[in-house]
Amino acid sequence: MIEGQESISQIPELKYAMIGGGPGSFIGDVHRKAIAMDGKARLVAGCFSRNYEDTLKTGETLRLDKNRLYRNYEELLQAEARHPDRPDFIVIVTPNDSHYPIARLALELGFPVACDKPLATSSSLAQELADLARQKDLLFCVTYTYSGFPIIKHLRWLISQGELGSVRFVAGEYPQEWLATLVEKTGQRQAAWRTDPARAGISNCVGDIGTHLEHMVSYLTGLEIETLCARLDHFGEGRPLDDNASIMINFKGGGTGLYWCSQIAIGHDNGFRVRIYGTRGAVEWYQEDPNHAKISYLDRPVAYLSRGRDPMCPRAQALSRIPSGHNEGYFEAFANIYSTFLTALDKKLHGQELTADDLDFPQVEEGVRGVKFIEKCVESSEKGAVWVKF
Amino acid sequence: MIEGQESISQIPELKYAMIGGGPGSFIGDVHRKAIAMDGKARLVAGCFSRNYEDTLKTGETLRLDKNRLYRNYEELLQAEARHPDRPDFIVIVTPNDSHYPIARLALELGFPVACDKPLATSSSLAQELADLARQKDLLFCVTYTYSGFPIIKHLRWLISQGELGSVRFVAGEYPQEWLATLVEKTGQRQAAWRTDPARAGISNCVGDIGTHLEHMVSYLTGLEIETLCARLDHFGEGRPLDDNASIMINFKGGGTGLYWCSQIAIGHDNGFRVRIYGTRGAVEWYQEDPNHAKISYLDRPVAYLSRGRDPMCPRAQALSRIPSGHNEGYFEAFANIYSTFLTALDKKLHGQELTADDLDFPQVEEGVRGVKFIEKCVESSEKGAVWVKF
Amino acid sequence: MIEGQESISQIPELKYAMIGGGPGSFIGDVHRKAIAMDGKARLVAGCFSRNYEDTLKTGETLRLDKNRLYRNYEELLQAEARHPDRPDFIVIVTPNDSHYPIARLALELGFPVACDKPLATSSSLAQELADLARQKDLLFCVTYTYSGFPIIKHLRWLISQGELGSVRFVAGEYPQEWLATLVEKTGQRQAAWRTDPARAGISNCVGDIGTHLEHMVSYLTGLEIETLCARLDHFGEGRPLDDNASIMINFKGGGTGLYWCSQIAIGHDNGFRVRIYGTRGAVEWYQEDPNHAKISYLDRPVAYLSRGRDPMCPRAQALSRIPSGHNEGYFEAFANIYSTFLTALDKKLHGQELTADDLDFPQVEEGVRGVKFIEKCVESSEKGAVWVKF
Amino acid sequence: MIEGQESISQIPELKYAMIGGGPGSFIGDVHRKAIAMDGKARLVAGCFSRNYEDTLKTGETLRLDKNRLYRNYEELLQAEARHPDRPDFIVIVTPNDSHYPIARLALELGFPVACDKPLATSSSLAQELADLARQKDLLFCVTYTYSGFPIIKHLRWLISQGELGSVRFVAGEYPQEWLATLVEKTGQRQAAWRTDPARAGISNCVGDIGTHLEHMVSYLTGLEIETLCARLDHFGEGRPLDDNASIMINFKGGGTGLYWCSQIAIGHDNGFRVRIYGTRGAVEWYQEDPNHAKISYLDRPVAYLSRGRDPMCPRAQALSRIPSGHNEGYFEAFANIYSTFLTALDKKLHGQELTADDLDFPQVEEGVRGVKFIEKCVESSEKGAVWVKF
Repeated sequence: MIEGQESISQIPELKYAMIGGGPGSFIGDVHRKAIAMDGKARLVAGCFSRNYEDTLKTGETLRLDKNRLYRNYEELLQAEARHPDRPDFIVIVTPNDSHYPIARLALELGFPVACDKPLATSSSLAQELADLARQKDLLFCVTYTYSGFPIIKHLRWLISQGELGSVRFVAGEYPQEWLATLVEKTGQRQAAWRTDPARAGISNCVGDIGTHLEHMVSYLTGLEIETLCARLDHFGEGRPLDDNASIMINFKGGGTGLYWCSQIAIGHDNGFRVRIYGTRGAVEWYQEDPNHAKISYLDRPVAYLSRGRDPMCPRAQALSRIPSGHNEGYFEAFANIYSTFLTALDKKLHGQELTADDLDFPQVEEGVRGVKFIEKCVESSEKGAVWVKF
Repeated sequence: MIEGQESISQIPELKYAMIGGGPGSFIGDVHRKAIAMDGKARLVAGCFSRNYEDTLKTGETLRLDKNRLYRNYEELLQAEARHPDRPDFIVIVTPNDSHYPIARLALELGFPVACDKPLATSSSLAQELADLARQKDLLFCVTYTYSGFPIIKHLRWLISQGELGSVRFVAGEYPQEWLATLVEKTGQRQAAWRTDPARAGISNCVGDIGTHLEHMVSYLTGLEIETLCARLDHFGEGRPLDDNASIMINFKGGGTGLYWCSQIAIGHDNGFRVRIYGTRGAVEWYQEDPNHAKISYLDRPVAYLSRGRDPMCPRAQALSRIPSGHNEGYFEAFANIYSTFLTALDKKLHGQELTADDLDFPQVEEGVRGVKFIEKCVESSEKGAVWVKF
Repeated sequence: MIEGQESISQIPELKYAMIGGGPGSFIGDVHRKAIAMDGKARLVAGCFSRNYEDTLKTGETLRLDKNRLYRNYEELLQAEARHPDRPDFIVIVTPNDSHYPIARLALELGFPVACDKPLATSSSLAQELADLARQKDLLFCVTYTYSGFPIIKHLRWLISQGELGSVRFVAGEYPQEWLATLVEKTGQRQAAWRTDPARAGISNCVGDIGTHLEHMVSYLTGLEIETLCARLDHFGEGRPLDDNASIMINFKGGGTGLYWCSQIAIGHDNGFRVRIYGTRGAVEWYQEDPNHAKISYLDRPVAYLSRGRDPMCPRAQALSRIPSGHNEGYFEAFANIYSTFLTALDKKLHGQELTADDLDFPQVEEGVRGVKFIEKCVESSEKGAVWVKF
Repeated sequence: MIEGQESISQIPELKYAMIGGGPGSFIGDVHRKAIAMDGKARLVAGCFSRNYEDTLKTGETLRLDKNRLYRNYEELLQAEARHPDRPDFIVIVTPNDSHYPIARLALELGFPVACDKPLATSSSLAQELADLARQKDLLFCVTYTYSGFPIIKHLRWLISQGELGSVRFVAGEYPQEWLATLVEKTGQRQAAWRTDPARAGISNCVGDIGTHLEHMVSYLTGLEIETLCARLDHFGEGRPLDDNASIMINFKGGGTGLYWCSQIAIGHDNGFRVRIYGTRGAVEWYQEDPNHAKISYLDRPVAYLSRGRDPMCPRAQALSRIPSGHNEGYFEAFANIYSTFLTALDKKLHGQELTADDLDFPQVEEGVRGVKFIEKCVESSEKGAVWVKF
């Protein structure tokens, strides 16, 4: 293969190692399948659990070379950094508290990183990661899944074109029901670590799902938070972290926002919804129907955009995989994020220039901002739900 | 007719006079038609407008006796109080600022009253009306329309029975779009008075629609507001009153709430929605689909109650007029409030005891509380969206 | 009153007598309330039941003059025809089998008529009524309720303007569940007469609800049936009449249609839905959300028309009573039909010319066509679901 | 690896060759990604197009060995049958007319097959394939995608348990809009072959999407068609094959059905919907919201099952990949079919017994029945939409 152009039209052939994602982790398998879908990278090494037996089992199931299954992340990173078949990037899907040390070491050893959100348990640690990634010139993707939906790309483009006029108000909500009872006491592993300050950090509900509200609104509108006022509730008896939160936002420039996230809202599975109201129009997107968006203007009937049916901006179109009416869901959104990240990685490895579209995956700075959002919400709430500067 | 019992089974034969409701008023005609529907009262006198010509025209259209059409409310009330065919109650459908003086005089002259909300432009004036009504032992109905839907009665009953467990969180929203542009400058009469502090009082958006949130949540749950924190926005350029508001509530006993009301939310007609989350279950009701409610428990699939199909409590059943799937809408809800109020009035006139169901129409005290809610929201917002005691 | 114009701007003052509509009838009360709503006519006489005691009770409840309550329809019609306060029209809300003799006598005595559908138990009897009405020059309204919704008027206008191009296919369905079990054996009066050939005629399901499909499609599109092929099912064990039907239609001019109506479709209350597909666009209307319609064109996102929000044709606008988002339901649709019929009646009584809009209520010929539709469906089904000419 | 049990708990390591699926094919890429997702098989050879250059380009993009890219299917099958790295199965994703010869040769050479539907252009050819597969004892999967959704598995189980009582009526519909205009004349390749009798066979609309109705109803209910009456419309001017069809079904045992499929129904993307009404309850599933199902019983409110939230039968649970509210779409359904097929294949290769769940992928006999369904619909329609025996 002589011409760079052609080598890129091929599907990249990248390799990765995964830390986390053993038995009982739902997200690890999602990362693996989302990556596998487009065939741009394959898993070559792993440390899937703090329990080595579990890592071995997962590794065997996935037909990995037993020599590339490790007892802890340090071993993995050190060994794989020197491996002749060295991975091109590291995927981190552990509980929140270990994101920082793992990502730090990975970066120090020169690995690009894909890491779950929230990026770290404090914004200063998160900022360190961002600084290190920039200093080392390494790509770093924070997997805010929902920004991967094609229709989200299109709405972002619409708003950037001024189609809604200037944004006045944003209503964001993210209700779930899974912590309505004390399932963390029943052996549910997800619930156990998410409600445990030692592993989840200073927040459960805002940390887990409130951050998606912050990210999505920022991604769609470009609005920056000026001040916020947050009330974090603890409804589960004896639960040390929040399970419901109400957040008022003042954006720079005059717009306002209102967010609600909850894990005790019986009747909701994963009810992430964002509504953005401008001077000329409004849009609404609901995660459980992710291939559509409601779009409203004063002088036209309220309409429903359909991915694949209605014209979308080129970036959205490029991520749309099948005809309209054929549901693209959570895995495909995830795959879109990885597909973008991996193409960028491949181009970088081949010394090519990265365009804005190439870099349209959630950057490490977005991860830093997300952690700061958690901190500010907790700070406001602990002071009595007062206004704090962002 | 000798036996009281039988006389009651007849449709009551009451008479009323109306103040307000001339050309350009949408609500006056709604009151008249809602009353006419069940035939329990007929209109005999009116002062429909500050413009006497308009009153004459409306009166002629309605085939009223020209001698019972008046130039102003004092004339009407004084004359009708002495009329041999004296009305049994007075309906007040004027802009907010005149509710108080009209209702006051009506009560002083011994008339029961049905009045639009908000009841007055200050809670002290509203309280005066409540005191006067109690002192004179006169029935006083404040027309919070939406509490008239049968399914609302049923949800209230469900909650009172503890079906949802104890209420943790309430999400209320009421988005509209009609003031997204400065229509008050285009001759739209509704918009003109609602955005004018001289006629609407200290609030537009909270006063007009935020009060419905306050009333509905209180009516459904019995929860009392302990403190609140409100941010009132003025998005219409130069608009002196609020057109969007975000309100955090702390209820007595530990529950919390979050309300949003807006008149600039493009894409919404009359999107009043209430969601109530308890420890055992949750309900959701949406005003644009008023014959149904979503009901959720952790151990059952999420379900949709249908008025007329699914068993309802007797009070709800009694107000359900037609089989399931046949839409009962805004007029029928209104008619239910009047039907209840008028039967109570008739029973009172016949010296009969009133039951709790007889009094299940919005009482004057609910109107007072609504005005206080407006005041507290404005107070909080003016102090910088801080927490204030209710 | 000298000037005709002015007399019309007043609300008409008409009187009517009702036959049928006693205890256990749901539709009688709907007619009364729908008429009362707009105040254009008042009830002055009645024969509400074959049981005179029931008629007396209903009459007393409605505060009618006891002398104008009758033992049977002949007595009523003969006496009221000579009454000094003679009614302006007769409302017939009895079971199907008595529509014909009552309407016939009413017409012979010179009364305009409003009658439930189906108009008669055979098309030849129905045609006699139509002929008699025309010969006597009497207005005759057949209460196909659903054509009274404003949005239906608008869709009809859209289609008449060629907005959808030429109509290719119509999908109509009307599922209900109320006869899924043998409720006719449990004392349910509605079920008892509707499943009894002696009172309902040759069809139950097609007669009761299939006729609404036939009428609505005809009303919206103007299409005429050329041939049809119907299969009528009898799922209720031992039920002599149909409770489910599938009907293929060939329209004159090349369009085709497919109708389904059912009373055994568990999960449906009153799920009347019509979808019309043309060469350029399509519309969908669902009776349980009657204030909206889905409208689709190939070159625009699918949109949802909202009554009161989006511009409608003048005829639709004239029947829209309240702002968008405030539900107008079944009663309001009914009231629209009566409001149109009564204004036409009033204009006719005042010797005024009737316009097309004045006559935009379901005419007796539409009732005749409806009966013919029932006959043709039964004929096709009995021959083995073969094609028959219409 | 000694123990069979353990080798199976590993992800199988299978290889496949693909015929069809070159540039412009949407379904080829879906097959590849759906297979890749679970990592049970990898593509090793291909003939993606009749145009060798296209095959080479696709092969290069997919990083295939150039020596395993072929000019036609015979070459591929003959060469790969003798290849030391011989594929474990063949995927056929060509237009309908070539399914038969390719599948026939593949079977003759001892390859298991996964083939798109419709299986062949005549039922006798389809039957030959079934006979050959049985005779050679080779697994043969026909990719009726929609049967792969977990909620479909659950509904099937519910019905098999008698939860709905006995099935009375089935309403199936599948409206699309993509052929509303003559896009086949604009260079759209999908449209070109599907409307061309030489490549699509005797039917376009029934063949492409009507068959999904037939398969889904049969799969969910086990009902067998006794007779049918079909009317196939050709609305696109000059279009030789059907683009809209109405089909009445009589099932053995007394149930009836009504199907509608269309490619000219403006406003619909891929609106596949199935509703099944029994004596005790009913279910409804809509392909564009594939993670939910409506479930109705007479004595309970209508409910909405949610995949992942509400208990499902073990088979459905096993195919559910992520928590409730996280959309599993078209790719995941496809992946479920392949995952089942490939595990069965792997177990067979290891000499293990196959259970009913192992064989819960669409069998070749289902493909034969689908072709027969097409033939019977065309036969009925050509005779004038008369009833024909199935």
